[in-house]
Amino acid sequence: MSDLWQGINKIEYVGNKGDVKSGLGFQYYNPEEVILGKKMKDWLRFSVAYWHTFDQRLVDPFGDGTAIRPFDGKYSDPMDLALAKVDYAFEFYQKLGVNFLAFHDRDLAPEGDTLRETNKNLDKVVDKIVEYQKDTGMKVLWNTSSLFTNPRFVSGAATSPYADIYAYSAAQLKHSLEIGKRVGSENYVFWGGREGYESLWNTDMKREQEHIAKFFHMAKDYANEIGFDAQMLLEPKPKEPTTHQYDFDAATTIAFMKEYDLDKDFKLNLEGNHANLAGHTYQHEVRVARDAGLLGSLDANQGDKLIGWDIDEYPSNLYETTAVMTEVINNGGIGPRGGLNFDSKPRRTSFEPEDLFYGHIVGMDSFAAGLRVAAAMKEDGYLDDLVANRYASYNEGIGAKIESGEADFKSLEEYALDIPQKDLLAATHSDHLEQVKDTINHYIVRTLAK
Amino acid sequence: MSDLWQGINKIEYVGNKGDVKSGLGFQYYNPEEVILGKKMKDWLRFSVAYWHTFDQRLVDPFGDGTAIRPFDGKYSDPMDLALAKVDYAFEFYQKLGVNFLAFHDRDLAPEGDTLRETNKNLDKVVDKIVEYQKDTGMKVLWNTSSLFTNPRFVSGAATSPYADIYAYSAAQLKHSLEIGKRVGSENYVFWGGREGYESLWNTDMKREQEHIAKFFHMAKDYANEIGFDAQMLLEPKPKEPTTHQYDFDAATTIAFMKEYDLDKDFKLNLEGNHANLAGHTYQHEVRVARDAGLLGSLDANQGDKLIGWDIDEYPSNLYETTAVMTEVINNGGIGPRGGLNFDSKPRRTSFEPEDLFYGHIVGMDSFAAGLRVAAAMKEDGYLDDLVANRYASYNEGIGAKIESGEADFKSLEEYALDIPQKDLLAATHSDHLEQVKDTINHYIVRTLAK
Amino acid sequence: MSDLWQGINKIEYVGNKGDVKSGLGFQYYNPEEVILGKKMKDWLRFSVAYWHTFDQRLVDPFGDGTAIRPFDGKYSDPMDLALAKVDYAFEFYQKLGVNFLAFHDRDLAPEGDTLRETNKNLDKVVDKIVEYQKDTGMKVLWNTSSLFTNPRFVSGAATSPYADIYAYSAAQLKHSLEIGKRVGSENYVFWGGREGYESLWNTDMKREQEHIAKFFHMAKDYANEIGFDAQMLLEPKPKEPTTHQYDFDAATTIAFMKEYDLDKDFKLNLEGNHANLAGHTYQHEVRVARDAGLLGSLDANQGDKLIGWDIDEYPSNLYETTAVMTEVINNGGIGPRGGLNFDSKPRRTSFEPEDLFYGHIVGMDSFAAGLRVAAAMKEDGYLDDLVANRYASYNEGIGAKIESGEADFKSLEEYALDIPQKDLLAATHSDHLEQVKDTINHYIVRTLAK
Amino acid sequence: MSDLWQGINKIEYVGNKGDVKSGLGFQYYNPEEVILGKKMKDWLRFSVAYWHTFDQRLVDPFGDGTAIRPFDGKYSDPMDLALAKVDYAFEFYQKLGVNFLAFHDRDLAPEGDTLRETNKNLDKVVDKIVEYQKDTGMKVLWNTSSLFTNPRFVSGAATSPYADIYAYSAAQLKHSLEIGKRVGSENYVFWGGREGYESLWNTDMKREQEHIAKFFHMAKDYANEIGFDAQMLLEPKPKEPTTHQYDFDAATTIAFMKEYDLDKDFKLNLEGNHANLAGHTYQHEVRVARDAGLLGSLDANQGDKLIGWDIDEYPSNLYETTAVMTEVINNGGIGPRGGLNFDSKPRRTSFEPEDLFYGHIVGMDSFAAGLRVAAAMKEDGYLDDLVANRYASYNEGIGAKIESGEADFKSLEEYALDIPQKDLLAATHSDHLEQVKDTINHYIVRTLAK
Repeated sequence: MSDLWQGINKIEYVGNKGDVKSGLGFQYYNPEEVILGKKMKDWLRFSVAYWHTFDQRLVDPFGDGTAIRPFDGKYSDPMDLALAKVDYAFEFYQKLGVNFLAFHDRDLAPEGDTLRETNKNLDKVVDKIVEYQKDTGMKVLWNTSSLFTNPRFVSGAATSPYADIYAYSAAQLKHSLEIGKRVGSENYVFWGGREGYESLWNTDMKREQEHIAKFFHMAKDYANEIGFDAQMLLEPKPKEPTTHQYDFDAATTIAFMKEYDLDKDFKLNLEGNHANLAGHTYQHEVRVARDAGLLGSLDANQGDKLIGWDIDEYPSNLYETTAVMTEVINNGGIGPRGGLNFDSKPRRTSFEPEDLFYGHIVGMDSFAAGLRVAAAMKEDGYLDDLVANRYASYNEGIGAKIESGEADFKSLEEYALDIPQKDLLAATHSDHLEQVKDTINHYIVRTLAK
Repeated sequence: MSDLWQGINKIEYVGNKGDVKSGLGFQYYNPEEVILGKKMKDWLRFSVAYWHTFDQRLVDPFGDGTAIRPFDGKYSDPMDLALAKVDYAFEFYQKLGVNFLAFHDRDLAPEGDTLRETNKNLDKVVDKIVEYQKDTGMKVLWNTSSLFTNPRFVSGAATSPYADIYAYSAAQLKHSLEIGKRVGSENYVFWGGREGYESLWNTDMKREQEHIAKFFHMAKDYANEIGFDAQMLLEPKPKEPTTHQYDFDAATTIAFMKEYDLDKDFKLNLEGNHANLAGHTYQHEVRVARDAGLLGSLDANQGDKLIGWDIDEYPSNLYETTAVMTEVINNGGIGPRGGLNFDSKPRRTSFEPEDLFYGHIVGMDSFAAGLRVAAAMKEDGYLDDLVANRYASYNEGIGAKIESGEADFKSLEEYALDIPQKDLLAATHSDHLEQVKDTINHYIVRTLAK
Repeated sequence: MSDLWQGINKIEYVGNKGDVKSGLGFQYYNPEEVILGKKMKDWLRFSVAYWHTFDQRLVDPFGDGTAIRPFDGKYSDPMDLALAKVDYAFEFYQKLGVNFLAFHDRDLAPEGDTLRETNKNLDKVVDKIVEYQKDTGMKVLWNTSSLFTNPRFVSGAATSPYADIYAYSAAQLKHSLEIGKRVGSENYVFWGGREGYESLWNTDMKREQEHIAKFFHMAKDYANEIGFDAQMLLEPKPKEPTTHQYDFDAATTIAFMKEYDLDKDFKLNLEGNHANLAGHTYQHEVRVARDAGLLGSLDANQGDKLIGWDIDEYPSNLYETTAVMTEVINNGGIGPRGGLNFDSKPRRTSFEPEDLFYGHIVGMDSFAAGLRVAAAMKEDGYLDDLVANRYASYNEGIGAKIESGEADFKSLEEYALDIPQKDLLAATHSDHLEQVKDTINHYIVRTLAK
Repeated sequence: MSDLWQGINKIEYVGNKGDVKSGLGFQYYNPEEVILGKKMKDWLRFSVAYWHTFDQRLVDPFGDGTAIRPFDGKYSDPMDLALAKVDYAFEFYQKLGVNFLAFHDRDLAPEGDTLRETNKNLDKVVDKIVEYQKDTGMKVLWNTSSLFTNPRFVSGAATSPYADIYAYSAAQLKHSLEIGKRVGSENYVFWGGREGYESLWNTDMKREQEHIAKFFHMAKDYANEIGFDAQMLLEPKPKEPTTHQYDFDAATTIAFMKEYDLDKDFKLNLEGNHANLAGHTYQHEVRVARDAGLLGSLDANQGDKLIGWDIDEYPSNLYETTAVMTEVINNGGIGPRGGLNFDSKPRRTSFEPEDLFYGHIVGMDSFAAGLRVAAAMKEDGYLDDLVANRYASYNEGIGAKIESGEADFKSLEEYALDIPQKDLLAATHSDHLEQVKDTINHYIVRTLAK
């Protein structure tokens, strides 16, 4: 192994042997360990995000980038830099021990003056990635296209009021699908950062949604045509950069998919920070998607619920990872081809190269911990019993008739008309939620201490 | 006219003649005035909410009720009070000059020990209402059923985990539909205050949603059976009292309706304060419903966007009423049988009887003002032109091909592959949103000063 | 011991022997165990809140109370009930193993038609409490006065625009201080639920603040006069029930205290849920108070950061309790006479008597866990070193001159004028916050598993 | 006049003659018109912000700048561009008809490798500004220093844990004060964008606050030394870019100023959007400052209360401008040397040069409208009477004794002990807030239509 990342070695599983203060090994993530019949690495399928890890300069709206990266200042030509980053990336994957990556088209190479030139730049970098894939077995969890950074997308891409921009977006996406096929992406993600509105006064929301629905259909048609069989995914986020983004949350996106007949071919890619910005927990969003059979993949990050913008923090909250992994276990896995992509970045004050490793370590370890805790509760049947008992009255008697469709308002009136108030109250039971929270605390501590 | 409301006279339209400080006449609401070919009273169809106006004691979570009402202390028997309130209510409607009322079943009469007894109490009050309707021509905009106040609904009604509670809810609702038929309700509303969850750990969301979908179907079937042809409406609210309510917002409710085949028979009843709690503007929610062809009726109130709970303030913000009435005009009216129901209450510090009049006056005048301003912009074609021009590139050339379905990714790539960056930028245009906001200010002032 | 609480036995420390699922013993709270030289019970000084535990019916703005309590239906006379509750309360304290209680005047006894009558009712209940105190050694962490529930306080108490209400409030508080002296309260708390505004249009904020400052001075003067030497405490909360409460947060309350010369005699009582409603973490509020030397006592509860109102949940989040106890350890204790009062209530769905025990168990165990983790980090010097190293540049050289006051803008310019940009950047260091979060996770698991 | 701004002419007052749709003249802002004895231009003292108007490229966290500016592409050397912008700026001021500007040091000129070089660049541009000032009479409302953009300030400037950065910050600020003296700034502003924390775990808040307090004292001392007599101002903002900024809001900043003896020499510069991010209305922040005698100047912009980050929209909401101008009138003016600085930028979709004019027009017109409405209410004594009547009970009797200090808890108890409950309730009065809101609507329409 070369040493592009300045003396950082491969991160190994150290378990409880690890130094509590150093954080430099995995204490919970043991990729080959079998949990509920499947290896940890197959439950979790961690992916490194190209944009945050290799491109992100740690800017914020009031400050320039603070990042120090090992390739800084070494390349004057943007294409040279783009090609060199591929080396840094693949060494990073190897040292971290992950098997998947994810990228936007514009993460990889600079734009030219026309799309034709841009595509040419991009193809060179993709060639190099494909070579590395052959050597290392690395897979692409998903690729996507940046239809939001360039000023041309100021008013949207597939919802732009300007037909030329729509056409350009389609052309750009076409090439991105072709790349997806070349690198063998397991999924293809659409995050519509500009697909929404700044103001309703000048927006024809319905016309814009019809346009983008057509765009998604064209994308799927073209993917089919070239034999690119990735799972297509929409990624909800409520706002930022727009005032309102059409894919507000899981439920809204499902409504859109159903309206425009996209729910057969598309699923959801869900993110914790986006969930919070929409007023939901991450668990809620995963549950909504799971119940609809539309859970596709997960973006692994966390927000600060007291902060109103997207911070994309590496996941560290064990309550949140336990909740999400509980949903995943009940779903039999994340999704047909899903994984956990770290759409996360170091804090602006964590600007050194090693922070990229620390960030992924806490993220991977926190999700591995969540998996362990959720599996322990599953094996004990703790939550399953809690839920099953709560709804038991629907398994027989009047409850069973309600579920089977035998009951109607007349038969139910007959049943209920003369029940005294006290008997009705006796039919309800305390949820003992305080005890549930206590129990989950104990599961976390006892499971992880093993 | 009797004088139950202590010397308050009928509220008349005074226009600019009114004293700017007294607020005791309508300055914008002139019910017979024709706006865009329809009388103001037909555009607006104001409704008084029984619960807030005649039952609300102005409690809050930290304080007892402050309300002073003219019927206080006059009746020791709850049924006597319930019957007397009908007199107060109908005199209130007449003095205010509204033509619609709205009520929950439990607003009208006290519960007995069984549903049979409760129904008996209720029927007596409904008899009296029906008599008054014959005399006055008052209509019921909608009625509904309180499936959230009584402790039996602690864990939901149609989503209760307890089958007996579900059965009771169905029986209660059956009678509420029968009342709807008797009073000739134009709509029937479902607000699922308890239909959601406190915690996901013990909740089978999917099973609960299947239960409530079945409930809605049974309700519609029974309404059909008895020939009650009201428009059925679901009312979204994101949270409070629950941690998460299933009908989170318009889009979420539409997703649910589509999933369970309810979108043919149900539409939406939307409220301003609920919109804000979900992170949306009121205009946004109305637009979402309108675009889906599912706008049913409106609850007229406003929230305080810096406050995280439901305050149900009487509407007074002219920006908000102008925005909502713009949507209504573009929809050709509120909905098939919709109106503006004041789901609003006085501040706890506005505790005198006359505040009930002041509150409705500012609410009615503010929506009338919004209608006037929106109509002025419509007559000038101001917003229509703004939107039409913005999307003009889709009316011909490549845009028209996109809309017609002639285009695909290949033809769009061909079109876009060699367009230089500067030409793409030239295809986008400034929205001049600052000018738009300035113009709306001028429309408000100049229209209302007439 | 009698068995008023229906078969619930004394809660004991069971440690890791406890059943992970039952939650019926303390797994972390071992009152006599010594942590950093002090017994756990002396670090934590848990207090039970009378209002939430014995009076709260679990109402919410949309529903009646669901609570089932062992004294329900046994007493028709309100004074009989009030006196009986004292028995239930003291048995509750004993079974739970706490040494402190807290109450409002109006928690204990019903009001009469005049304050004289009200005081008489109250005194009878206080007599009984004092008797119990003699027998059991129970102490009062603090008492307070409800100047917000009764409609007379609709526009405030000590900030009421009505002088008669101000006078009444003073009189009520006078008696409350006398009670404080009788029961030996260690602190006296002021939470100004109505001391703020509904609207700025009609509010003379400065005049109101001058009134309430005078009120606090009169209170302290009278306490001195009668020899009641409790620590006086103000409790911040930003809003609810008011639109804006004057004691918005710790910093705002400190500004007020300094402006009106109250910072010598008053300190702060801080609550987790209130902190969140003001946009802060609980840790932040405690730090602000601690740095100002004004930390008095703590209300132990937690909010849901995605919910915009006060939910007063029992604390269960180990991150939050670890953070707060870290501050407490660094403060050498909570405050001069402070403790952890459970201003917490069961969820409305946790309506059975045993839920009052479960709630306190998870709360006490979570704070005990937080104490253990914080102590472990303290013993290792983990956070202390982190902070000390970060600011080390101020311990010598130019940094020391800055701190000592030797430096001025001219000497600093001389020092800095020619430092090259790269040297300045080299003077800054990564905070490695991702590693810090990972380390805290490991401390939680390893410490608690012992 | 030259035509650097491409055909845009001087903006004149057109009043009601203006085209409602074009927005190209002032309809409410008539600078020479006398309102309450003072010219509009003297009430309002509008200032153009250099950073938003001449430097801002309209980037956002997900997109590159969209701005089109008349100087784009004309200058390859950064210093040439910096010098040219001064011409554009002064023509802009003249066409808009404003008399004040505001700038950060780094807005004007690029940095060199050392502060000495940076200062040299800056001085050249300041020379040119001073020349223009002589010719045009333009004044500087305030200048300030950017201690947040450069990566060296990653962990703060005057609160940096690194003494070298502190020293550098002092040196930079020294020069900024010297510039202030040269351009005759009426105020000097400190906005501490990085002066706060990312995480409390590694932050010594007290030590940092002591450092920055010392910094402010050194700044004032140096200003005194060089005879720069600008009013010093602190600008609160709760968060962004930091997790928590020390100058959270007006009250917090006042607490800090009092703690460190800065309240004699410093006042506050308040901004609408920042107010909202802290959970307050703009009016609230102005009131807090006014009541403390610490209102210094205002940043004129507005936020979107449903959005959790700083959007710096040009003010257009007439409710907000009316509320702020009501406070200003009651304060006798904004502050000793205050003005309204447009810390506002066009939406990213308003990217053309003329949008800079539209934005300032709607902002200036909205504040002029607010002034007119507030003045009309003042002349009628509307709000003054409302407030005076509300507190009238303190003008005599027991109320007067409370205010004078004659009363104490014993005399107040004597007064209140036997007042019956109904008499207490009768002492309170409804605030009729719904009527107040209605009246304000009428004032807006009728005043502005004149």
